[in-house]
Amino acid sequence: MKPYSELTKSELTELEQKLFLQYEDMKARGLKLNMARGLPSAEQLDMEADFFGILYPDSSFISEEGKDCRNYGELTGIHEARRLMGEMMEISDDNVIVFGNSSLNVMYDTVSRSMILGVCGSTPWCKLDRVKFLCPVPGYDRHFAITEQFGIEMINIPMTDEGPDMDLVEKYVNSDPAVKGIWCVPKYSNPGGVTYSDETVRRFAALKPAAEDFRIFWDNAYCIHHLYEDKQDKLIEILGACAEAGNPDMVYKFCSTSKVTFPGSGLAALGTSKRNLDYIKSVITIQTIGPDKLNQLRHVRYFKNAEGMREHMKKHAAILRPKFELVQRRLGEELGGLGIGTWSNPVGGYFVSFNTLDGCAKTVVGMCKDAGVTMTGAGATYPYKKDPADSNIRIAPTFPPIAELDKALDVFILCVKLASVQKIIEEKTHNE
Amino acid sequence: MKPYSELTKSELTELEQKLFLQYEDMKARGLKLNMARGLPSAEQLDMEADFFGILYPDSSFISEEGKDCRNYGELTGIHEARRLMGEMMEISDDNVIVFGNSSLNVMYDTVSRSMILGVCGSTPWCKLDRVKFLCPVPGYDRHFAITEQFGIEMINIPMTDEGPDMDLVEKYVNSDPAVKGIWCVPKYSNPGGVTYSDETVRRFAALKPAAEDFRIFWDNAYCIHHLYEDKQDKLIEILGACAEAGNPDMVYKFCSTSKVTFPGSGLAALGTSKRNLDYIKSVITIQTIGPDKLNQLRHVRYFKNAEGMREHMKKHAAILRPKFELVQRRLGEELGGLGIGTWSNPVGGYFVSFNTLDGCAKTVVGMCKDAGVTMTGAGATYPYKKDPADSNIRIAPTFPPIAELDKALDVFILCVKLASVQKIIEEKTHNE
Repeated sequence: MKPYSELTKSELTELEQKLFLQYEDMKARGLKLNMARGLPSAEQLDMEADFFGILYPDSSFISEEGKDCRNYGELTGIHEARRLMGEMMEISDDNVIVFGNSSLNVMYDTVSRSMILGVCGSTPWCKLDRVKFLCPVPGYDRHFAITEQFGIEMINIPMTDEGPDMDLVEKYVNSDPAVKGIWCVPKYSNPGGVTYSDETVRRFAALKPAAEDFRIFWDNAYCIHHLYEDKQDKLIEILGACAEAGNPDMVYKFCSTSKVTFPGSGLAALGTSKRNLDYIKSVITIQTIGPDKLNQLRHVRYFKNAEGMREHMKKHAAILRPKFELVQRRLGEELGGLGIGTWSNPVGGYFVSFNTLDGCAKTVVGMCKDAGVTMTGAGATYPYKKDPADSNIRIAPTFPPIAELDKALDVFILCVKLASVQKIIEEKTHNE
Repeated sequence: MKPYSELTKSELTELEQKLFLQYEDMKARGLKLNMARGLPSAEQLDMEADFFGILYPDSSFISEEGKDCRNYGELTGIHEARRLMGEMMEISDDNVIVFGNSSLNVMYDTVSRSMILGVCGSTPWCKLDRVKFLCPVPGYDRHFAITEQFGIEMINIPMTDEGPDMDLVEKYVNSDPAVKGIWCVPKYSNPGGVTYSDETVRRFAALKPAAEDFRIFWDNAYCIHHLYEDKQDKLIEILGACAEAGNPDMVYKFCSTSKVTFPGSGLAALGTSKRNLDYIKSVITIQTIGPDKLNQLRHVRYFKNAEGMREHMKKHAAILRPKFELVQRRLGEELGGLGIGTWSNPVGGYFVSFNTLDGCAKTVVGMCKDAGVTMTGAGATYPYKKDPADSNIRIAPTFPPIAELDKALDVFILCVKLASVQKIIEEKTHNE
């Protein structure tokens, strides 16, 4: 098909009328579909029925180290859970704390702790005039919401195909002592699906921060969330890379089993240096009586080890793959060559990132909503919900059953076309 | 027996030698017993084996309101869990958030939130020069540790048989705007076993705080933890009392099932006014993706309702009662009339509070330790671990099997006697 921009004004007007009628027809159908959040589907959740029988009947509740997991204790998690999550993160269990059910909560608490108490003895961030975080964009809305809540100034860093623009990252981190952190989703990034290249990771590890309490918030949320057996991104392990580069304390790694077992009922873990860990332990011993060790036991006994997890993830992939392929096929067939959008084609993770013509994202998402399809809000992938180009939309294809996803894509594609043609007409009129 | 203080110096010296030999003999036995923390015993934990089969096999995971508890969502807890915990707290489910596994963590986060963000729009406490908390003493060490970590100044308020000295509480709260909170364990208090009288609760509810962001931290940890069917303390419900007195927002209630089901794997809940709740929701929506709803479902399906919980607590009481009665019998028979100690006789909760002669608590706990019996550290029941009289010791009789408890009491009683006789000799010598 011809790019929209090459159509004449009368062709465009005719096209708009046709699309508008289709859209009115679509609205009349009273759809109610949701592509907003990265939720596993019911089909994925149904796979784990055996998980609930793990501690029943006649189970032992005694950990490897002889602790009764039904009682108080084990602040940093039982050893076998630290080992399991350590394997998942490709680091030693000595570097792991297993927390509760939400890695977001672990990240929030990590920022919160730095605000009130500082980082390993540094000045508490709440006592400083300015605290800044770098935010690779587009990125994860919930990361940005945390730093926004704490009044931390956020600086956009454009993403490339290899990760964040490292020239910019180095410029800020190495020169500005107010820059205390950077949010990263280094593998199958949210929403772009980008995995940081080896060079990017090495440049991260080699940073020379102006602030001694600068930390990389490395949210490896999708570390084992591949869609394919034969096409998998590889990511250099950052803790080791930082240690090699002489920056052993510079990174916090986060991960969880929210999308391995159950969102809200999985395990979340932090991986970091011994020094950071010791400091964090000294704080959380006041904060909590410890994590849910019975849920840790369930996870360890269910998976045995990281290999068990990886096998399990193949079953998730089998359910998710057709959904991602459907998105690619439909976008390719119906928007390819029109010059009105670009999109990512990730081999893992939970999202497809879509870029409309500049200035169209809000309109598209609004149109979708009016036609009964809820998308992630336009702008959500940027700090302060402000996408300067108003072009990025996060597509979350995992939750709806495939037939519903197909219907939601009908709406989305139509809305992209309609909003684009209107935009182009507007611009042509303006330029006349 | 004659009070030690009435013995002659030579009688005392003789007694000391006898006790010292017994103590040396005791040390030689190489005991290893623990009466330090309020842990349920293995026997209590074993009662709940059926709990683990609750979601297995062929269970529904759909909440009353139609949500799949295996997926994200329900930030404040599923409705049936809010109802259950609301019944436990004697308040409406509209006033309840069900959190994770640790009420201590909920309290910590409540203080932390106030530090960084303020209370319902007030100035964040970290921006103030001074923040003070009132601490009824003796009290719960983990409460004091939280306020100490945040650099909050703690003021001792003596406990009476009816609760904290309310003249002092009123004086501080109603006049000093730096006083932002008070830690309370209002029922079967830790460690004294005191339940606040009706008058105490009404005086709390009628406070006229100088600070608009003053809050009562009402940790009702032992609300259904009775030892007897026929002897139970009653506590006025504070949320209702505050609302009646025109102070609807003045209190946070905390409770958990840590000592109902499992420490570390129970449910923790917060009960408070709608205004406080709305504010807290607006913060935690950034902090977490939500609580473990599957564990909420387990609890609700296991107990059905608060009546089910209360029935269940009778089984705990049957295990704990003989332990508390053993403590009373042994202390009464062997220390009664000696004038070297007083102790509480609670009808619920997890502790017995023991007061030695002034200046003896540290010595007693140290002697116990050297003889292989770990007690809660002397001083722990006071802010900054400083017991001005060095006299209070918390006895935690719940965890050891009864035969071990008996042996631990051998040691404890002997150490009280020995430390007391030494103290009296020292004083007599000093006064000569």
